[in-house]
Amino acid sequence: MSNELNFNIEEELHEECGVLGIYDFDGGDVASTIYYGLFALQHRGQESCGIAVSDTEGPKGKVSAHKGMGLCNEVFTPEVLEGLHGNIGVGHVRYSTAGSSTRENAQPLVLNYVKGTLAMAHNGNLVNAPELRRELEYSGAIFQTTIDSEVIAYHVARERVKTPSVEAAVANAMKKIVGAYSLVVMSPRKLIGARDPYGFKPLCIGKRDNSYIIVSESCALDTIGAEFVRDVLPGEIVTITKDGIASDTSLCFKERSREARCVFEYIYFARPDSVFDGVSVYHSRLCAGRALAVDSPVEADVVVGVPESGNAAALGYSLQSGIPYGTAFVKNSYVGRTFIKPKQSYRESSVRIKLNVLKEAVVGKRVIMIDDSIVRGTTSALIVNMLREAGAKEVHVRISAPPFLHPCYFGTDIPDEDQLIAHNRSIDEIRDLLGADSLSYLNIDRLNEMAEGLPICTACFSGNYPIEPPKEDIRGEYSR
Amino acid sequence: MSNELNFNIEEELHEECGVLGIYDFDGGDVASTIYYGLFALQHRGQESCGIAVSDTEGPKGKVSAHKGMGLCNEVFTPEVLEGLHGNIGVGHVRYSTAGSSTRENAQPLVLNYVKGTLAMAHNGNLVNAPELRRELEYSGAIFQTTIDSEVIAYHVARERVKTPSVEAAVANAMKKIVGAYSLVVMSPRKLIGARDPYGFKPLCIGKRDNSYIIVSESCALDTIGAEFVRDVLPGEIVTITKDGIASDTSLCFKERSREARCVFEYIYFARPDSVFDGVSVYHSRLCAGRALAVDSPVEADVVVGVPESGNAAALGYSLQSGIPYGTAFVKNSYVGRTFIKPKQSYRESSVRIKLNVLKEAVVGKRVIMIDDSIVRGTTSALIVNMLREAGAKEVHVRISAPPFLHPCYFGTDIPDEDQLIAHNRSIDEIRDLLGADSLSYLNIDRLNEMAEGLPICTACFSGNYPIEPPKEDIRGEYSR
Amino acid sequence: MSNELNFNIEEELHEECGVLGIYDFDGGDVASTIYYGLFALQHRGQESCGIAVSDTEGPKGKVSAHKGMGLCNEVFTPEVLEGLHGNIGVGHVRYSTAGSSTRENAQPLVLNYVKGTLAMAHNGNLVNAPELRRELEYSGAIFQTTIDSEVIAYHVARERVKTPSVEAAVANAMKKIVGAYSLVVMSPRKLIGARDPYGFKPLCIGKRDNSYIIVSESCALDTIGAEFVRDVLPGEIVTITKDGIASDTSLCFKERSREARCVFEYIYFARPDSVFDGVSVYHSRLCAGRALAVDSPVEADVVVGVPESGNAAALGYSLQSGIPYGTAFVKNSYVGRTFIKPKQSYRESSVRIKLNVLKEAVVGKRVIMIDDSIVRGTTSALIVNMLREAGAKEVHVRISAPPFLHPCYFGTDIPDEDQLIAHNRSIDEIRDLLGADSLSYLNIDRLNEMAEGLPICTACFSGNYPIEPPKEDIRGEYSR
Amino acid sequence: MSNELNFNIEEELHEECGVLGIYDFDGGDVASTIYYGLFALQHRGQESCGIAVSDTEGPKGKVSAHKGMGLCNEVFTPEVLEGLHGNIGVGHVRYSTAGSSTRENAQPLVLNYVKGTLAMAHNGNLVNAPELRRELEYSGAIFQTTIDSEVIAYHVARERVKTPSVEAAVANAMKKIVGAYSLVVMSPRKLIGARDPYGFKPLCIGKRDNSYIIVSESCALDTIGAEFVRDVLPGEIVTITKDGIASDTSLCFKERSREARCVFEYIYFARPDSVFDGVSVYHSRLCAGRALAVDSPVEADVVVGVPESGNAAALGYSLQSGIPYGTAFVKNSYVGRTFIKPKQSYRESSVRIKLNVLKEAVVGKRVIMIDDSIVRGTTSALIVNMLREAGAKEVHVRISAPPFLHPCYFGTDIPDEDQLIAHNRSIDEIRDLLGADSLSYLNIDRLNEMAEGLPICTACFSGNYPIEPPKEDIRGEYSR
Repeated sequence: MSNELNFNIEEELHEECGVLGIYDFDGGDVASTIYYGLFALQHRGQESCGIAVSDTEGPKGKVSAHKGMGLCNEVFTPEVLEGLHGNIGVGHVRYSTAGSSTRENAQPLVLNYVKGTLAMAHNGNLVNAPELRRELEYSGAIFQTTIDSEVIAYHVARERVKTPSVEAAVANAMKKIVGAYSLVVMSPRKLIGARDPYGFKPLCIGKRDNSYIIVSESCALDTIGAEFVRDVLPGEIVTITKDGIASDTSLCFKERSREARCVFEYIYFARPDSVFDGVSVYHSRLCAGRALAVDSPVEADVVVGVPESGNAAALGYSLQSGIPYGTAFVKNSYVGRTFIKPKQSYRESSVRIKLNVLKEAVVGKRVIMIDDSIVRGTTSALIVNMLREAGAKEVHVRISAPPFLHPCYFGTDIPDEDQLIAHNRSIDEIRDLLGADSLSYLNIDRLNEMAEGLPICTACFSGNYPIEPPKEDIRGEYSR
Repeated sequence: MSNELNFNIEEELHEECGVLGIYDFDGGDVASTIYYGLFALQHRGQESCGIAVSDTEGPKGKVSAHKGMGLCNEVFTPEVLEGLHGNIGVGHVRYSTAGSSTRENAQPLVLNYVKGTLAMAHNGNLVNAPELRRELEYSGAIFQTTIDSEVIAYHVARERVKTPSVEAAVANAMKKIVGAYSLVVMSPRKLIGARDPYGFKPLCIGKRDNSYIIVSESCALDTIGAEFVRDVLPGEIVTITKDGIASDTSLCFKERSREARCVFEYIYFARPDSVFDGVSVYHSRLCAGRALAVDSPVEADVVVGVPESGNAAALGYSLQSGIPYGTAFVKNSYVGRTFIKPKQSYRESSVRIKLNVLKEAVVGKRVIMIDDSIVRGTTSALIVNMLREAGAKEVHVRISAPPFLHPCYFGTDIPDEDQLIAHNRSIDEIRDLLGADSLSYLNIDRLNEMAEGLPICTACFSGNYPIEPPKEDIRGEYSR
Repeated sequence: MSNELNFNIEEELHEECGVLGIYDFDGGDVASTIYYGLFALQHRGQESCGIAVSDTEGPKGKVSAHKGMGLCNEVFTPEVLEGLHGNIGVGHVRYSTAGSSTRENAQPLVLNYVKGTLAMAHNGNLVNAPELRRELEYSGAIFQTTIDSEVIAYHVARERVKTPSVEAAVANAMKKIVGAYSLVVMSPRKLIGARDPYGFKPLCIGKRDNSYIIVSESCALDTIGAEFVRDVLPGEIVTITKDGIASDTSLCFKERSREARCVFEYIYFARPDSVFDGVSVYHSRLCAGRALAVDSPVEADVVVGVPESGNAAALGYSLQSGIPYGTAFVKNSYVGRTFIKPKQSYRESSVRIKLNVLKEAVVGKRVIMIDDSIVRGTTSALIVNMLREAGAKEVHVRISAPPFLHPCYFGTDIPDEDQLIAHNRSIDEIRDLLGADSLSYLNIDRLNEMAEGLPICTACFSGNYPIEPPKEDIRGEYSR
Repeated sequence: MSNELNFNIEEELHEECGVLGIYDFDGGDVASTIYYGLFALQHRGQESCGIAVSDTEGPKGKVSAHKGMGLCNEVFTPEVLEGLHGNIGVGHVRYSTAGSSTRENAQPLVLNYVKGTLAMAHNGNLVNAPELRRELEYSGAIFQTTIDSEVIAYHVARERVKTPSVEAAVANAMKKIVGAYSLVVMSPRKLIGARDPYGFKPLCIGKRDNSYIIVSESCALDTIGAEFVRDVLPGEIVTITKDGIASDTSLCFKERSREARCVFEYIYFARPDSVFDGVSVYHSRLCAGRALAVDSPVEADVVVGVPESGNAAALGYSLQSGIPYGTAFVKNSYVGRTFIKPKQSYRESSVRIKLNVLKEAVVGKRVIMIDDSIVRGTTSALIVNMLREAGAKEVHVRISAPPFLHPCYFGTDIPDEDQLIAHNRSIDEIRDLLGADSLSYLNIDRLNEMAEGLPICTACFSGNYPIEPPKEDIRGEYSR
């Protein structure tokens, strides 16, 4: 076990996707609303994005789509947006590892099948995708992407021949696919939303005038001026047609306790202004901060959060402990996706370019620094050092999540165990690597409080997988 | 039947594609050679292009690909080309009608199937693609493009389960697909070339050092410094592995007279420096010019060709008739794909911007103007008028092909009958529309001479289709 | 005086520029350090940016430069950066009104003049630029841009003939130009920094190893890992040569009380982690918040800042009043410069897309909302309304600056008086327009406290101009 | 003197510029007509281009301009073109050596000066530019580009103070500037065209409806549907105002024999469909071919031209000698400015990619190959070899110009003497280097015939400079 950190790597965890579907009963074009909605989901994926629209009154199967690598404001121009006509549509933002051919993997997936056209956007990861792919290939299927969505699409297409409706085909397909998925599907006259029975990934329903929206996070509803209606249930299939909204809950678990929401959505991925299954993300972060204050108190002069995601927990810590809340960092919001990373030296590091310490706020002070997680530890160590250089007398690190110890098979890009700082190391060893005066993680049984008792998946911390993990590590196998 | 021409339309006919495959036994990277080869095929398609490569010694299924809308020098940068590693590869250039989602249709098609990966590039059009698509869809297939190549790929994938090799699967697939196709297929360890039994589209084999090349036109072999080896036979499947080159001719017609090479490749599509099935394109054009001089003589001072494709026939006419050859036009080679077309006025027309008359060469002269075809007649009428404005005393138009009268179902983008100037019009009526002093087309039975007796398809002129045409007009049906 | 707000306009104030110069005595390339430094200045200008470098040991006059429209990470690629060789250089970020030819106005200005080459980057606005331009034109000058920097450059060039050194020429030029300017100038062997005698704009000196840096804000020194050395004095000319650093203070005011630092740098423009003339920007904002709490107290449950610039004052208000600090807003950091602005409707507004309210944090609460300024009032009114929609019981607006009442002639883009919400309106009228329960501005005599007694310019609030304002409104006259 | 050729260099000679101005008395927008006109001048410069327009009825000094690196169809989009409003305008295409900052040098130059705004486009090179620059610099001028146009602009600006009109200022400026220049100048209400007294560069006047055009080559008039009116005389200043066209010939030489048109415009630069000073470019090339046939006859089977510029001379040779004209080469017109050049190997060379031999046309034949010039000889040697590989029995090279022996100071980019193949070599030595069977150049005294007795400059062949050449080689000195 090395006692040195490799500073030449990216520290951030990545969510895999965000999805959005909309159906305007008044027949208005929906592309620009999808575009604004995708902005509110952009934190869920910055690698590629896309929109596909159709006209429910137009010729069946006429889908207009545009996809590309990059952020929404890089991929879409006014001309492109104006060329996308239709009152029903789906959109997608995506993260994945880079590569020359990843544009093929951008979503929504648009396809012709036995009953016309289908556009599909998907957030999540299947655990049985490899077996399903192999089966499909043996029956003559060809795969043009490496995304699980294509596997789902095949199952929908095959079931569609035997079933009376596309939503029934989706239901049948869901009996075969296993894992994490929140889906929006656009058929020529229907918008369908579906969430896996475990409810790993969020999905909710909104309404604006005569339009229904199905979307990954409720914050996107605020952005487009829509009202939150309700969450899609784990296992539920919601179908929106011109006759209104229909629900199929036959695939939901009888015992709701089997549900397994990704707790990391609350801890880090989701925007704090989203609410999932009744629990406010912001509130759950405050709560984690309060719990840290109770479980791991320390005398100090100021509590600060590592922006942006550490701020809410810092506020919670402050409120609970009475130690004043402070702002210790200035984040540079102009450092975009394409900035040229410095050849790693301490003098010019990506961290320094993105973050600076407010000396005034920490000089001579005992500082409690709250962050939401430590993956490899490199960024945290740099930040602790920056605080010290700025004159902080003590730096106490508090993490608003338990230590990462296990891989995730459900759509979170956690690196291999041997790259996780907490793997095979004691808290004291980690503290020394970070150069902190003290270090505490959130106690794992506090997670239930954060989620206000909702059944959650804590596998990356506990190793308790709600679904049997695949024997082999399947992540990345299908990269081209 | 209108007696006015609509000048607001494009006149040129478009070929649908060019393909190229290469296998370097010495293990060198082939991407840059494919790139240079595609330049020599660029006249066969300017809408999109792509390259896919693999390493025969690398991990099976690791394909690197890059595709994009535009010309080769727009789509490929040095960085992209350097990122494409592999000693086996296929490339493609494509023409198609424009549209927001056509990037999906760019080739090569790269896919995962039961036996690993496959990359495929295809030139041609199937006549039974719609039936085959429907059949496939009923068995659960999904289509992500609107190109026939995807239909072919599915058949290869389905056959592959039942057959010992990919080339056997290609052979089985070829028993089902009907129409025009020249194919190059790259499997992880093999390069396969196949040509439909009619031989509609050209395909030939070349060699450079320890590399084999399979390509649409022989001119590309010259460009990359390779030697021409031989043509792929109509119906032949050629398989190149590390053990050398193998041929399967079991699908070739027993009666070679059933073969039906597209005569328009000789007349217009192909580059004059290509040789197909033993017949030089340049020579066949000279020959057409000579035939025009014999069949449709006229007294004149100079013979000129409409650049570029009319020049060879003009030279043939001159050599046969003894009337001096001249250059009457200057073509502007800087008017690229993306130039802003003028709102159609006579003063500023696309034709004038692309072409100017050398007054000096025609003033006071009786001019014979040779062109290879007239589609709608608008460009020809403009050019005749430009010659007159420049001072030509007489303008005699000679066309080195018969009149277009029938649609093509095999990959040539001939417009609907009612847009063809020759449809329901006499030669005299056409002559009047063009404003020419006289007009003659190539006599249809001269086509055999042009092709030096090779069996050819003349359906667009004669209506004699070598394959039963589909009942409905299938062209464009699968556009999204 | 209308009682309606026009929501279809941009609300934000814009700074005009940021400058940076660097001289590496060890001969290393400085372009990439300038690039990282410009990131830290990006908030001072997002319209265009540029870098010019030279080699002090190379041939005199060989300057490499690259400029372009957009942010640093849009304008610079690794290739461009690697092509900029030299150990001395200057960089610039710029804001200006849009326009087709504004690229001409991007800086640094690079020019050949009597003594070789010069590159110059400039932040500020001259009040006598029009007169100087006219004089220069009458003596035969031509102007290729519409920026004041060109006027300065001319004066330097003309003085250079009569003076022994470029720094002497700069000094002579400074006797003629009147207004706000912080300059960095690169001559083949020297780096010069100069600040106008009023000290309107900040400028400071840093050091890293064997490199000297002159830059608009000290935060950029942190970013590149340099130490702060000292501020350039108002009126001082600093010259850095291989022999070290020299200072000319002959132009400084004898009475330092005539100095007139722009107080809006402290209030809004500058990054909170910068320190100007000994006063921490962050601290001055805290101080303004505390003053508001003292002067305009109100009973409430939470104090929140409008991000980003309102947060520090909100913290100050909270610390002073004891009312808890909270986070009420989530800012979307992915909404870039080029995002497609919605056609203004309440449902989809730029404000909503950029900002969302954390309902959880404000529902049922009496909220004190702190912002740094109100220009036209449209954004503020929208935000107040968003807080109410989210359930806030009361909304008390506190502005950490006095009301804007007068135009600025020194480089801040304040709109015309009749567009300023405070123009000819009482506080109560403004409060009603905003829909707030109460409204208070910072008391104007608190500004001295904020600046810790430094002489400041408060003209935009008070109308007391440190320099006679020009008779005519010169802003924008020289737009092409 | 090496006997090897360096194949790793560009062979082509480059013209430096083309200019165009237009004034529409009917008030219509002229930008799109300038755009189409620039296409016809594109062969004169492919590095950058630009358009500046103004409205003669609008506010004085409101100029809209757009310039960029690349071809017209790369630099201009429909949006850009539609944003350029005005009924008076100038355009420019430019060639220059590459470099990171050359965008600054793109024309037209747009500037503010004592009497308002001026836009200027310039073709040519001054021989006293360095002295003039130095003088101007000593009087306080600054230079932001490295083009001579800026020197001219300064002189116009300085004279304008003393003179009653801009055309008088141009006349006074022309008394000081020495060298080659064809200019178009747009002042707010006037379009001015001027040609240096030697008439080095062409310039002519056209008319379309109520518009006057001043342009480098007459072919552009054909392209935009305008009529040729007359050439601008060497030394003439033409001024177009709303009152019509005025001429000032006071600067023309009394002895017209001092005029010195660049003969290389006839030989190579100009488009064959242009006519300069009454002499058809096409005709002069035919004439050179005929002269070669008379002076350097050889027995052969076919005469071919190296496209495009060799074709006219080849036709002349054929007509004079009776040896049949043939087409031996196919030129690839898709190889654009940005194609990736192959690492030089014989197999994959730029020449092979651009040019292929029509084997059919040369196999077994004695070929006379006509080209317009040989610079370094590398391309010619490759082409001779390609002809031999294609089966040519003999290759006789005939060059329709005398050998290059001297540098040009008037705007042609001829390389240094020691790179010229003819420098210090006998004809036999050159023939051996090319691998030709025989080689002849045009006899230098045939040049007068080509130009039909017009006074010409033949300095690059003869060393007889019409103006004393500068003592030092000034070319390239002012590169940044």
